[in-house]
Amino acid sequence: MTTLDFDKAGGLVPVIAQDADTGEVLMLAWMNREAFEETLRTGRAVYYSRSRGKLWRKGEESGHVQEVREIYVDCDADTVLLKVEQVGGAACHEGYKSCFFRRLDGGELSVVAERVFDPKAVYKK
Amino acid sequence: MTTLDFDKAGGLVPVIAQDADTGEVLMLAWMNREAFEETLRTGRAVYYSRSRGKLWRKGEESGHVQEVREIYVDCDADTVLLKVEQVGGAACHEGYKSCFFRRLDGGELSVVAERVFDPKAVYKK
Repeated sequence: MTTLDFDKAGGLVPVIAQDADTGEVLMLAWMNREAFEETLRTGRAVYYSRSRGKLWRKGEESGHVQEVREIYVDCDADTVLLKVEQVGGAACHEGYKSCFFRRLDGGELSVVAERVFDPKAVYKK
Repeated sequence: MTTLDFDKAGGLVPVIAQDADTGEVLMLAWMNREAFEETLRTGRAVYYSRSRGKLWRKGEESGHVQEVREIYVDCDADTVLLKVEQVGGAACHEGYKSCFFRRLDGGELSVVAERVFDPKAVYKK
């Protein structure tokens, strides 16, 4: 698979997940080659967690998997755009549909979205 | 400005530019603190070019600047989403509206968009 250039950022490429129906940008995560290939094979988004240093099968704990509808590659072949169906309606571990639930206005961040789920009820730790 | 965590990726954060009207994802680029602050100050997208190692005032050569309408920060404060008005109608240096003009189907990339401008006419080198 020579579709993507994994060398520019130490083996990882940034991946944007976008709601296939509404166009809302849900999150940005990272893939290494293994995550990318598993995503292609399974049709579900698999990322690489930089903090945990291993594959992150999105939704493996919460059930909120991302069914991949389309995959786009940018002009430099170093970024991926996934159009996904977000099972459960929320991509963010904080319970919001999108991880971009805070807007910067006049130097201050304010929450501009409603929670879809309560993180404490979904992640039992 | 402590809004963003610039430390995770060596002083840079990935930035997604999205068309404010249509929701189309236009491109992904990078900002260092200086680029972010100039973007806030001027209302136009300023990135940091990893290949050139300096600030990249988007559109400085082509005239295709990005007027920033809204700025979102993700849950981990390490990614930015800009909602922009793309002057000239095309964000990609290859002349397409979006840098994500190629879709992966069955292991092959195919161009799925029309060129908005001819790069040779815009970038006189």
